[in-house]
Amino acid sequence: MKSYRIAVVGATGAVGHEILRTLEKRQFPVSQLKPLASSNSLGKTVEFQGKAVPVEELRASAFDGIDYALFSAGATRSREYADACKKAGAVMIDNSSAFRMKPDVPLVVPEINPGDLAKHNGIIAVPNCSAIILGVPLWPLHQAAHIERIIVSTYQSASGAGAKAMAELDSQARSYAKGEPLKKEIFPHQIAFNVFSHNTAIADNGYNEEENKVIEETRKIFHEPKLPIVATCIRVPVLRAHSESIVIETKRLITPDEAREILSKAPGVKVVDSREKNHFPMPLEASGQYDVLVGRIRQDLSHSHGLAFFVAGDQLLKGAAWNAVQILEYLTNSRL
Amino acid sequence: MKSYRIAVVGATGAVGHEILRTLEKRQFPVSQLKPLASSNSLGKTVEFQGKAVPVEELRASAFDGIDYALFSAGATRSREYADACKKAGAVMIDNSSAFRMKPDVPLVVPEINPGDLAKHNGIIAVPNCSAIILGVPLWPLHQAAHIERIIVSTYQSASGAGAKAMAELDSQARSYAKGEPLKKEIFPHQIAFNVFSHNTAIADNGYNEEENKVIEETRKIFHEPKLPIVATCIRVPVLRAHSESIVIETKRLITPDEAREILSKAPGVKVVDSREKNHFPMPLEASGQYDVLVGRIRQDLSHSHGLAFFVAGDQLLKGAAWNAVQILEYLTNSRL
Repeated sequence: MKSYRIAVVGATGAVGHEILRTLEKRQFPVSQLKPLASSNSLGKTVEFQGKAVPVEELRASAFDGIDYALFSAGATRSREYADACKKAGAVMIDNSSAFRMKPDVPLVVPEINPGDLAKHNGIIAVPNCSAIILGVPLWPLHQAAHIERIIVSTYQSASGAGAKAMAELDSQARSYAKGEPLKKEIFPHQIAFNVFSHNTAIADNGYNEEENKVIEETRKIFHEPKLPIVATCIRVPVLRAHSESIVIETKRLITPDEAREILSKAPGVKVVDSREKNHFPMPLEASGQYDVLVGRIRQDLSHSHGLAFFVAGDQLLKGAAWNAVQILEYLTNSRL
Repeated sequence: MKSYRIAVVGATGAVGHEILRTLEKRQFPVSQLKPLASSNSLGKTVEFQGKAVPVEELRASAFDGIDYALFSAGATRSREYADACKKAGAVMIDNSSAFRMKPDVPLVVPEINPGDLAKHNGIIAVPNCSAIILGVPLWPLHQAAHIERIIVSTYQSASGAGAKAMAELDSQARSYAKGEPLKKEIFPHQIAFNVFSHNTAIADNGYNEEENKVIEETRKIFHEPKLPIVATCIRVPVLRAHSESIVIETKRLITPDEAREILSKAPGVKVVDSREKNHFPMPLEASGQYDVLVGRIRQDLSHSHGLAFFVAGDQLLKGAAWNAVQILEYLTNSRL
């Protein structure tokens, strides 16, 4: 069996950590693992397949001999090292926003548009986490009934802003318990016991960067450049999974029962929809799962062709690490 | 100046406490305050105007000589004592869901339908907290541009389930900090670091009780019995203010600037909408305020006549206690 030399850029970060765990769990054939990070992480090691692997410094020469480089170190780093990666002949699987909207870069959720992978020129982008978690359950419904409009409000966890943001929520909860002042460094507002509009800049259209990513990336992944979407992205005090309240309008009327039937067979989706037990998707249960949980499937009472539901997906896994490793598995034909 | 004999039913609860604080703050003319609660609270006192007032047992005879009785002790208690209240000649201002949808009971948000107060037969109902917080900012927009559809997703705090639910969130955060297991008694799911579909029963239409309240009560308050509304009600780990992500479609096109202008002059609304500072409505800032905060006002990119925004309002104040005291002020012509 063929095996591969894999670089993980941002190996000490929240997503990098999950990429290592996912490669292990999926028994992906790794002949060499090269964890890369900024010089701040030199001297650190990461665990991989039972061994402590020393972290190496991210620099242009680090990609020599690498087959695939999985980047999760922010858009600036991805832009800085894309050329080095290409020159070394390594294919870049990029979790950042750097190249997502470039026409020659496939933006791929394997459950939706794996065919786009064939068109890559050395870079494949992993979509924004909220766009992935939105897209996975919507795609089978789009194929069945043609979605004409999407209205989504998110409940996004701290993990989307990285390991330090998760630590900030944790530390604010601990300070609260001790009766100490709650410190904030990563988020502009207190995250514990609070909810706030996503902490990215607001563009001229009145939407923040996160919302514009959800809108534009969903259109690109779906190959529907004009799909009407309105997104409201909100942070909530949850550690690592995102939830979304979704309303869609479809061309063909789709009943809740039909939607449930379609979703129960869809890849990457798990229906959690027990009205009797009041048991529906929750970020706490989505954490650690590859699948996006879908529930509260019901008719939209305000529209003849509307459908409403609620989803939760692990931001670090399907929203980032797992989607990246899935792409790697597709590219190498090493799916389990 | 005329003054009034006021009973507060559920005086030791979260809303009861805020009713007492609000009566004080508004300098409402109280000649006698009678705090009522179940026999469990006998021996307790509540603070009012600097004095410790003994809690009396809720029973039919307790309403003798009372002018207005403000109920916040749940629908069962309200149903049980409505007749006693009426016989004693006391007007009931009821925070519970017991009578809200009865045709002869006005359901009133004073910023919206104060005229309905005149039609009461001894009972006036305070709407569901999420319906009030939704209605206050929507009403002026409805008057200006006629709302044809409402799509709302809520971010509801623990306070909506009472003082014990707030204590449960507090105690789960403390247990988390100590590394102890998180206990749950009030909510069916962990509330700290989690988000879940509102913990009320799901009706045959697939909507939970809270969502059906938001839909039906908004229609009644607005005198729009067929207004198309879809609501998704979700609990978040916040102590006492509710937030809502709202999208509306209007008959007449309304621009974000016009909406901002209308909302900035609307009663009970405070516009918090700084794109530069990324400062928008947050439950932490809405807590303790009478006004509903409104921001993220922007065009709905998915609909030609759509408008999107985000609101936060204190569930215990405008969502309950303050709305009840406002009604009392209207009925007694003692508005400040």
